[in-house]
Amino acid sequence: MSRNIRILGTGKYLPSKIVTSEELDRKLGLKEGWAAKKSGVKIRHVVDGEVNSDMAVKAIEQALKNANMTKEDLHCIISTSASFDQPLPCQASLIKEKMVFKNHPIPAFDIDSTCLGFVVGLDTISYLVEAERYKNVVIVSSEISSLAINPNQHESYTLFGDGACAVIISKSSKEETSSIKTSLIETYPEGVHMTEVRGGGSILHSRHYSEKNKTEYLFDMDGRAIFRLSSRLINGFMERLFKDSGLTIQDIDMVIPHQASAMAMKLMRKKLDVPEEKFMSIIENHGNVISASIPMALHEAIVQNRIKRGDKVLLLGTSAGLSLGGLVFEY
Amino acid sequence: MSRNIRILGTGKYLPSKIVTSEELDRKLGLKEGWAAKKSGVKIRHVVDGEVNSDMAVKAIEQALKNANMTKEDLHCIISTSASFDQPLPCQASLIKEKMVFKNHPIPAFDIDSTCLGFVVGLDTISYLVEAERYKNVVIVSSEISSLAINPNQHESYTLFGDGACAVIISKSSKEETSSIKTSLIETYPEGVHMTEVRGGGSILHSRHYSEKNKTEYLFDMDGRAIFRLSSRLINGFMERLFKDSGLTIQDIDMVIPHQASAMAMKLMRKKLDVPEEKFMSIIENHGNVISASIPMALHEAIVQNRIKRGDKVLLLGTSAGLSLGGLVFEY
Repeated sequence: MSRNIRILGTGKYLPSKIVTSEELDRKLGLKEGWAAKKSGVKIRHVVDGEVNSDMAVKAIEQALKNANMTKEDLHCIISTSASFDQPLPCQASLIKEKMVFKNHPIPAFDIDSTCLGFVVGLDTISYLVEAERYKNVVIVSSEISSLAINPNQHESYTLFGDGACAVIISKSSKEETSSIKTSLIETYPEGVHMTEVRGGGSILHSRHYSEKNKTEYLFDMDGRAIFRLSSRLINGFMERLFKDSGLTIQDIDMVIPHQASAMAMKLMRKKLDVPEEKFMSIIENHGNVISASIPMALHEAIVQNRIKRGDKVLLLGTSAGLSLGGLVFEY
Repeated sequence: MSRNIRILGTGKYLPSKIVTSEELDRKLGLKEGWAAKKSGVKIRHVVDGEVNSDMAVKAIEQALKNANMTKEDLHCIISTSASFDQPLPCQASLIKEKMVFKNHPIPAFDIDSTCLGFVVGLDTISYLVEAERYKNVVIVSSEISSLAINPNQHESYTLFGDGACAVIISKSSKEETSSIKTSLIETYPEGVHMTEVRGGGSILHSRHYSEKNKTEYLFDMDGRAIFRLSSRLINGFMERLFKDSGLTIQDIDMVIPHQASAMAMKLMRKKLDVPEEKFMSIIENHGNVISASIPMALHEAIVQNRIKRGDKVLLLGTSAGLSLGGLVFEY
């Protein structure tokens, strides 16, 4: 199950507009300090006219620069976002349009697993890169939650942020030891309604939008229930993830968790018995950026020199669905 | 690039409600016979309360039966639909919920390339099946366009139908010759706005829905422009698809095209120089069912004994994006 995959470059983009937790306390009429304390988020970036594809292109441009490549070196574009510019066509084709290629008809399509989109996308497409179907692939998550969070759900309203992150992968050369060691995705439908946006599809088309049902078109999350279910599942999941890999959690140099919430991350870290310095948190100044959270934390770990070539890294998270996902790689 | 993949079973589901082209002529105030003549569709099935996940489950159940399997034999569920029950979570997790598993946490996630979703999903996931990451995988496309087509666009309003189709694949045994021979996906953003639903995402949230802008939330298609662009691209695409495969279009026993429209299919068939009996059309009694069209036509080719084990089959289509996709397999 090992795949000879190497990360060539990563790029992050945050919209320039910042919303502080103090502003949210005031806006929502909360006790001073509530938002920062409850969510662990001090500031989050939010879009101001930009859409998902705009941010995705900026993140890809930075990833290309960091990989010392041009866009013409890419052979496939995968969008792994949960939010989107418009329902149709797929997000990747809208991103490709804004990248402005000339005679470079590489495929662009989407892989979606909500917050785990990036992990599932990387896991899936790595087999095609290993098999040399595509040489250089960019995987991009670009998320906007600020347009769909519910001000009456203080917990999620203060938690989320917008932004994008792109990661370029290729097959390792024979001299390189970079590789994906093991990965596992599991879906538990008992949690499928714990995180959702119910309105805007076939169940409830936009034409039914009204003042009365408007919250149906907004993000609805039961953070406590998700955490309870994830906590119950995580130990068994970790066993199955590491099984046959010859590795244990002690071999991991850095855990890159989904930035679900500061509290959930802290409890999960303790449950996994991982020291703080080996557990990447960027939630304080990013918030939870849905599927862009994991690649953003990975990007920060790389640019802050908290991981180096040869290190073993674990990407780990949960997503609406409810899915658990883990992927171990040597950087 | 060959992958030892075998189709174990297929299943189709059509909602029971039927709309005839005569009914549409009357509803839209068209000349008698216009709808059937223009679209090539005599009847199409449309949902009457069912949502995408309901139809997907029915199609999967039939595919399991035809494969002589139970749902517990599955190791991964891929939804490849362009339309969806609700924007979040991903469609596959909503399908998995309705399949009602007990202690079977196989992953469920989405791959989306609009009308080519099934082809891109099959192409992509085949590498994971070949590598034995997942043994038995079901790929399901379940589409509802009837809720989002625009009665003022007669061409698309008379063309589309609803329904679902599921295909179960596994790795071929050493004695079996079933395999994917070659495949190619290309994306041409110059066609990205020729087929779209602009409202319902970050660009135009459902909250902005109004009587004035309501068509923004409906399907908008420029069939003529799509056909012109596809026609210009198809010959080069076919050359690149077959290159290095050792095959030509003459080796193909059956072409399974996207059921774009009767006219487009006829012209494309002539351009490819494929005789009528080797070109599967089900549009007359299904309409264009977005990403479910190709697997449905494949399903019909199998159940009507128009392809047999050992035959070489070409899946071929275009999708919003604009993407072209082709995949050749030995059944």
